[in-house]
Amino acid sequence: MENTISIFDTTLRDGTQGEGISLSADDKLKIAQKLDALGVHYIEGGNPGSNSKDIEFFQRVKGLKLNAKVTAFGSTRRKNSSAEQDSSLIRIVESGVPAATLVGKSWDFHVHTALQTTLEENLAMIYDSFAYLKRNSVEAIFDAEHFFDGYKHNPEYALMALRKAQDAGANWVVLCDTNGGTLPSEIHEIVSRVRAELTAPLGIHTHNDCELAVANSLAAIQAGARQVQGTINGYGERCGNANLCSIIPNLQVKMDYRCISDEQLQTLTSTARYISEIANAHMPVGQPFVGNAAFAHKGGIHVSAIMKDSKTYEHIRPELVGNKQRILVSELAGQSNIISKAQELGLDVNANNDKTKQIMERIKELEHQGYQFEGADASLELLLRDAFGEMKEIFKLESLKLIVEKNNGHMNAEAIVKVNVEGQTVYTAAEGNGPVNALDNALRKALEQFYPSINNIHLADYKVRVIDEKDATAGKVRVLIESTDFNNTWSTVGVSSNVIEASWEALVDSIRYALLNMARITNVHDEPREQLGLVNH
Amino acid sequence: MENTISIFDTTLRDGTQGEGISLSADDKLKIAQKLDALGVHYIEGGNPGSNSKDIEFFQRVKGLKLNAKVTAFGSTRRKNSSAEQDSSLIRIVESGVPAATLVGKSWDFHVHTALQTTLEENLAMIYDSFAYLKRNSVEAIFDAEHFFDGYKHNPEYALMALRKAQDAGANWVVLCDTNGGTLPSEIHEIVSRVRAELTAPLGIHTHNDCELAVANSLAAIQAGARQVQGTINGYGERCGNANLCSIIPNLQVKMDYRCISDEQLQTLTSTARYISEIANAHMPVGQPFVGNAAFAHKGGIHVSAIMKDSKTYEHIRPELVGNKQRILVSELAGQSNIISKAQELGLDVNANNDKTKQIMERIKELEHQGYQFEGADASLELLLRDAFGEMKEIFKLESLKLIVEKNNGHMNAEAIVKVNVEGQTVYTAAEGNGPVNALDNALRKALEQFYPSINNIHLADYKVRVIDEKDATAGKVRVLIESTDFNNTWSTVGVSSNVIEASWEALVDSIRYALLNMARITNVHDEPREQLGLVNH
Repeated sequence: MENTISIFDTTLRDGTQGEGISLSADDKLKIAQKLDALGVHYIEGGNPGSNSKDIEFFQRVKGLKLNAKVTAFGSTRRKNSSAEQDSSLIRIVESGVPAATLVGKSWDFHVHTALQTTLEENLAMIYDSFAYLKRNSVEAIFDAEHFFDGYKHNPEYALMALRKAQDAGANWVVLCDTNGGTLPSEIHEIVSRVRAELTAPLGIHTHNDCELAVANSLAAIQAGARQVQGTINGYGERCGNANLCSIIPNLQVKMDYRCISDEQLQTLTSTARYISEIANAHMPVGQPFVGNAAFAHKGGIHVSAIMKDSKTYEHIRPELVGNKQRILVSELAGQSNIISKAQELGLDVNANNDKTKQIMERIKELEHQGYQFEGADASLELLLRDAFGEMKEIFKLESLKLIVEKNNGHMNAEAIVKVNVEGQTVYTAAEGNGPVNALDNALRKALEQFYPSINNIHLADYKVRVIDEKDATAGKVRVLIESTDFNNTWSTVGVSSNVIEASWEALVDSIRYALLNMARITNVHDEPREQLGLVNH
Repeated sequence: MENTISIFDTTLRDGTQGEGISLSADDKLKIAQKLDALGVHYIEGGNPGSNSKDIEFFQRVKGLKLNAKVTAFGSTRRKNSSAEQDSSLIRIVESGVPAATLVGKSWDFHVHTALQTTLEENLAMIYDSFAYLKRNSVEAIFDAEHFFDGYKHNPEYALMALRKAQDAGANWVVLCDTNGGTLPSEIHEIVSRVRAELTAPLGIHTHNDCELAVANSLAAIQAGARQVQGTINGYGERCGNANLCSIIPNLQVKMDYRCISDEQLQTLTSTARYISEIANAHMPVGQPFVGNAAFAHKGGIHVSAIMKDSKTYEHIRPELVGNKQRILVSELAGQSNIISKAQELGLDVNANNDKTKQIMERIKELEHQGYQFEGADASLELLLRDAFGEMKEIFKLESLKLIVEKNNGHMNAEAIVKVNVEGQTVYTAAEGNGPVNALDNALRKALEQFYPSINNIHLADYKVRVIDEKDATAGKVRVLIESTDFNNTWSTVGVSSNVIEASWEALVDSIRYALLNMARITNVHDEPREQLGLVNH
């Protein structure tokens, strides 16, 4: 147990303080499930005393029956009042969470400047608040804000603040480098001293303002801390919080600590990428451990050495974190993932047959063009089934025209679509709230007489990202569409320099996949298998 | 002198190994000038033995008369030959550089696996190569590749390799963590031991595969290294090299070492942004010290504390590195964020006046509609200036029409724009790669005769997000556009159920902001203040 580290994820709370990160209650629930599967021990969901989105999250997350402890966030009670009358503390208890984190002051300067109260009152605020949580059977975590700055200026007072929480029964005392300005050598020394003074288990919470958040977290663990707080991909205010996607593999692979299981560690890359998609945040290709270039080799000497022994230029095996080696000259990477995906679909593939090699070539070519199948499993499945001749063309586009007009302040969008379905030409037009909606409407109108079940599908999310950043509106864009019926959710992708064309491609894939899936699962009688795009063979 | 650290920049050599980083000889010369102004001591320009681009660079850079030492890169001589006959070493000497870095092996495993020679021959390769450089009066730097991995496996041999370079007269012995897998505690211990064994001054060269490159560089300096090798913005293979933009301020502001002058340090942010423009690489908003969000504050409590004393949530004064504080506005934030933003702009606001209350109402209403100003500071500034009557209308849109057509597999987009500028009606049409690009082109065509400076602006990023996920393509979308000239980056937002309308809104804001800013900063003569949207008052 000595070397077990508790992972406290605050992507859903401190992570949303990051610029451009904004999550709906639905987003938060999806992310919580992924975090739970990754095996983190605590998921801090938000502040149930602050806004209706967080209240909704705490209500709905109960239904997910997660293994992780869902944790609420709040502050120590208001000055000159009592914990029992503090509406924010009351709401934490009422939310029914098993654990809560309260942030409180440990830097005397902040007590005077920000709280504007006395040093004694701040200590009472800490004691009262933790005693209140413990009386209400909530596991209690003290986030000692600005602890390192406080300790440097007034170590006695900073330690007193920690002891108050410990005396009131706090289960964890977490030392925060709130401003992100502390160096690893200082962290190591201060945590070692605190370790000698306290009995409560210690945690560490760092920020990345000096590009040292990961190093500071590791230094604290080496000095005796046993909980680490951070976020996926390091999201968070200013320069971000400590990045759990780097901390977990460092601890587990390099330093022999235990955080999550080895199988869970292998989901790290897909978890990080999934959450970056949900958050609509660009993941840097060079992000350590999980980035697309983290194990990519470009230099000729490196590549030839890598082919002799991958240890020559790789610090760990990429598979340990679910990532893969990429060799930018002759790319053999990703093959095994695709083979296992195809096998899962019942397709006859293996690394040696020609068909498989052709598919790999095709996927490599598409990825080079900017397609990304990680966030578009349905498009990948269609591509594989197409390659094996399993899919029939549902319709053929003859022409498409879209007109968007603004006149007298009103904006109108209309789409005209000419398609050929089962030998019949269908010509439809429709309006929409925007161009993609108009296209979607016109296409459905053309197809619904043949496939009435498409009325059950709706599009759940639509995202656009520029791939080639050299010239934002002239570069290529990648459109991701997430669709859903009542049972399933699937994602499709389209790429083009024209956002309308990319959207069209993703829309068509979405409808093809839906029809395929309905045929397979519900065996709808009025729509024979062939009509739905599946060829019997 | 004891605390002076030599900064060795390898952006132009190791940095170009990064995925997507490709620099022409012109680009390299521009970057070299910026690096020289920043005050780095060595600028590694490339490998004069490898390609014509690098040969051109070394020829032309002499004309720039830089203060920094321009440095060439190469390897120790080939096995079983002599330094005098090594074409790559000969070209280094011929290039006329004052200093050169040679990479060589110090890990026995690599000598066997990658070089495929004997341990003795590798030592001879090192000795001969450095003796050759010194005979030719070139300052000689030994980059001991994989030194830390080598030391862990066979410390005697790794040290022997270093001693060979030292004995041959190498001026610097640089310990490289080539695979980026070493931890700061290991770096500190190993550098300390090497320090005790060698007389040559030591350097450190790290990679960021564990998100520890900056920490590892600092640990080596604390253990006695006096040169640090890295790149601007951490560009480099896989996860990148050590980021000098974080290392320099950490050493100089936090650790009392001297690297560059305080005035030069104040150019750090503009240097980092300029080089990211030249390299066409997206700079993460949260990049430590120099990112656009490095000193941005979002949480309401943080903002109200910052207004009392910026030290409460800032680890250093942003001006030290040429960056600035920004107050973000968001659902999490209170009124105080907006007030301080407005005060920053010199507008007369305070929590009690009516105008301020109206603005708050307006922003709340817009946020309710789906606007998000935290990622769109330029739109917020325009909104505030509009509310205070500071902005003049640059043009009035009379009508807009967009046609996207697909026929025979080809997709075309054209835009027709009719605007009124200064009482004149301008009617333009333009094509584009996609609808937004067509609009952008048509609008610029209409405005450039009035405001020629808009040709300096380009759009750096374009993002679309569905706000109301209930019905993805019929719901509202939020478009964020990031624009840039060479000095500044700004973001604007548009919201509509029509992606074209939302894009148009963000585009127009981008251009309005650019013109406002140019008028304020450069005082352009052919574009009087009023014309640029600023009313004198």
